[in-house]
Amino acid sequence: MIDFDLGIKTKIYFGADKENEIGNILSELKFKRALIVIGQGSVKKTKLLPLVMEKLDEHKIVYKLIEGVRPNPTVDFVIEHLDSIKEFKPDIILAIGGGSVIDTAKLIAVDYYYDGDPFDFNNHKAKPKKALPVGVILTISAAGSEMSTSCVIQNDAQKTKKGFNSELIRPIFAIENPKLTYSVNQYQTACGIVDIMMHTLERYFQPSSENEPADRFAEGVLKSVIKAGQKVIRNPEDYESRAVLMLMSSWSHNGLTNIGKPFGMPVHQLEHGLSGMYPSIAHGAGLAVLWPAWAKYYVQYDEDKFNLYAKNVWGSILPNKRDNALQGIKLTEEFFRYIGMPQRLMEFKVGAIDIDGLINLLTDNGTRVVAHHVKPLDEEVARIIYNSCL
Amino acid sequence: MIDFDLGIKTKIYFGADKENEIGNILSELKFKRALIVIGQGSVKKTKLLPLVMEKLDEHKIVYKLIEGVRPNPTVDFVIEHLDSIKEFKPDIILAIGGGSVIDTAKLIAVDYYYDGDPFDFNNHKAKPKKALPVGVILTISAAGSEMSTSCVIQNDAQKTKKGFNSELIRPIFAIENPKLTYSVNQYQTACGIVDIMMHTLERYFQPSSENEPADRFAEGVLKSVIKAGQKVIRNPEDYESRAVLMLMSSWSHNGLTNIGKPFGMPVHQLEHGLSGMYPSIAHGAGLAVLWPAWAKYYVQYDEDKFNLYAKNVWGSILPNKRDNALQGIKLTEEFFRYIGMPQRLMEFKVGAIDIDGLINLLTDNGTRVVAHHVKPLDEEVARIIYNSCL
Repeated sequence: MIDFDLGIKTKIYFGADKENEIGNILSELKFKRALIVIGQGSVKKTKLLPLVMEKLDEHKIVYKLIEGVRPNPTVDFVIEHLDSIKEFKPDIILAIGGGSVIDTAKLIAVDYYYDGDPFDFNNHKAKPKKALPVGVILTISAAGSEMSTSCVIQNDAQKTKKGFNSELIRPIFAIENPKLTYSVNQYQTACGIVDIMMHTLERYFQPSSENEPADRFAEGVLKSVIKAGQKVIRNPEDYESRAVLMLMSSWSHNGLTNIGKPFGMPVHQLEHGLSGMYPSIAHGAGLAVLWPAWAKYYVQYDEDKFNLYAKNVWGSILPNKRDNALQGIKLTEEFFRYIGMPQRLMEFKVGAIDIDGLINLLTDNGTRVVAHHVKPLDEEVARIIYNSCL
Repeated sequence: MIDFDLGIKTKIYFGADKENEIGNILSELKFKRALIVIGQGSVKKTKLLPLVMEKLDEHKIVYKLIEGVRPNPTVDFVIEHLDSIKEFKPDIILAIGGGSVIDTAKLIAVDYYYDGDPFDFNNHKAKPKKALPVGVILTISAAGSEMSTSCVIQNDAQKTKKGFNSELIRPIFAIENPKLTYSVNQYQTACGIVDIMMHTLERYFQPSSENEPADRFAEGVLKSVIKAGQKVIRNPEDYESRAVLMLMSSWSHNGLTNIGKPFGMPVHQLEHGLSGMYPSIAHGAGLAVLWPAWAKYYVQYDEDKFNLYAKNVWGSILPNKRDNALQGIKLTEEFFRYIGMPQRLMEFKVGAIDIDGLINLLTDNGTRVVAHHVKPLDEEVARIIYNSCL
């Protein structure tokens, strides 16, 4: 176990119809001016937004709404609204939505107090020193941004997607009503399942001690999510499974599953390269294609861990260690296929001709090694992985 | 999964020599007057206390020391010091020690703002409305009080030991250096291991849904603790195992392993009856005797869960479900014996003649049912359980 400092400040309000408490929650925290951030309008149709507005009115909380955050959200959206937000002077940002909306709220939270280029934090040219508090009403189980320190934003002009981490942007609360996710379609539900699993798996495959509690927690998240995923794909209104996915979304990315471990997300970086260049690719779908390819390459360098994964998560106990390690990867691939995820890059219309561009973007034209664990993920390894899932 | 609200505010500073940061931590949080609470002097001998004082001096933080908290700590200690504490006007209470010291600090934190009987919160006659913040430097892995909302205190006059819970008393930080526990002797280490396991097991055996993430987390805690316990009993300076016990101590009692589940602690209540009446009994040792007795009685009412426990924690897969369920209990008992725990009440010199008094205390003279799950734990069942481990 390595040294760490960890405080997970997000308070979760979990259960059916918990969004009714939004007025009380904001009032108790003494907030008076809420900036509400939403996506492309679904929360208007579902009546969630009108309900929130009603509760805020009841508690005499003033609000300003900004809407239209797209999937793979852009810094341009933040730039467009920043002046009017500064004029409004919010004391809290309330994100109603999923990862894209929450990450947008987080970037607003830090850019509000920053006079430089609004993409500086993502470009790692500056570190945030102050932020508005962010609260969340979650509507999709996927990104885990509702409890995480991470903020990933697209820059269309640069054709990049970049993230930064700061305790300042960890939401102070998240309201989680599993019923709000009943209407998420099968494809988006599956993308979310993959995203939750990947937040967990990426941490799991970072180096561990022999007796590593974080890895036991990770196995618990994975087993719960796989079981819930199998059910929810058949029955989108299975409350228990929707609840498991929602809670695991938050707990897969809040620091628990890498507590006392080094942190790294190589497959996420491979995917950010992909959806940075092709913003129409859903993040989870990109991960579903890339992780098996990454795993089949790295299994040769980390057979023991892949074997443990197969055993503890999938219950696979083939006698030969290498066979068993490969079996865990195969079962993961089959699960992704079962829930309706793509398997090859060509399903996104990405072909051999695109790989050079992707790798240049990912490695800053060959100057950057993406990850260092076991066998460094450099330009050459990235090429092998991308090519193997064409 | 049932509805819940949960925010775990405690920030953990974990690693070798982390106590060196105490001055910085208090300074950054703007504290200026620390009440230091310690036990019976071991932190003076180990030089931990002088180090803390030096760091506080460096940061110009004024402090007052109160010392002499005993195991199974008493409300009398709090009463004795309350006036001088009010005179000192601390803005933070710093507990340096284990569960007894931390629980004493917590009671001071709420009694500081309360004019009624200092045992009212424990007697459930009042609920705390305000508390001083509590910070911790942990020196023994056991009670989990460093991250919990719980405060259990002895009342010698009443011969009772009673607990209350409040978010107000959850510590705001805990400094955890596994090396500080190297000097904890084998018996106290074993008592701590049992306490950590019991915080987890009691929650685990509360009702669950079919796919319950909290139970997967609990299994992770238990597997990690058993493995570390086996090692640390042979080698008290095994850093990794001490680290696992310390971290699991905190995470077994902070709400994670019952997230989305009903909460109850029947065996703890049986034990509080016992050590309330006989304060020389170490809490963990009492639990080690009582849990197997409780389990052997309750297995008939909850065979499936005991079977799952045997399988997922101990890897036992006997073909007959009842046999397997019993095997899990047997392996737990054997583990407790292996780490040096007692097995019968007579080892504490508690005999048949004492049972009536114990039960009267536990059930408020037969007027109270201790727990309601599966088969209510009433006077009659308590008698069966106490008698079976005489």
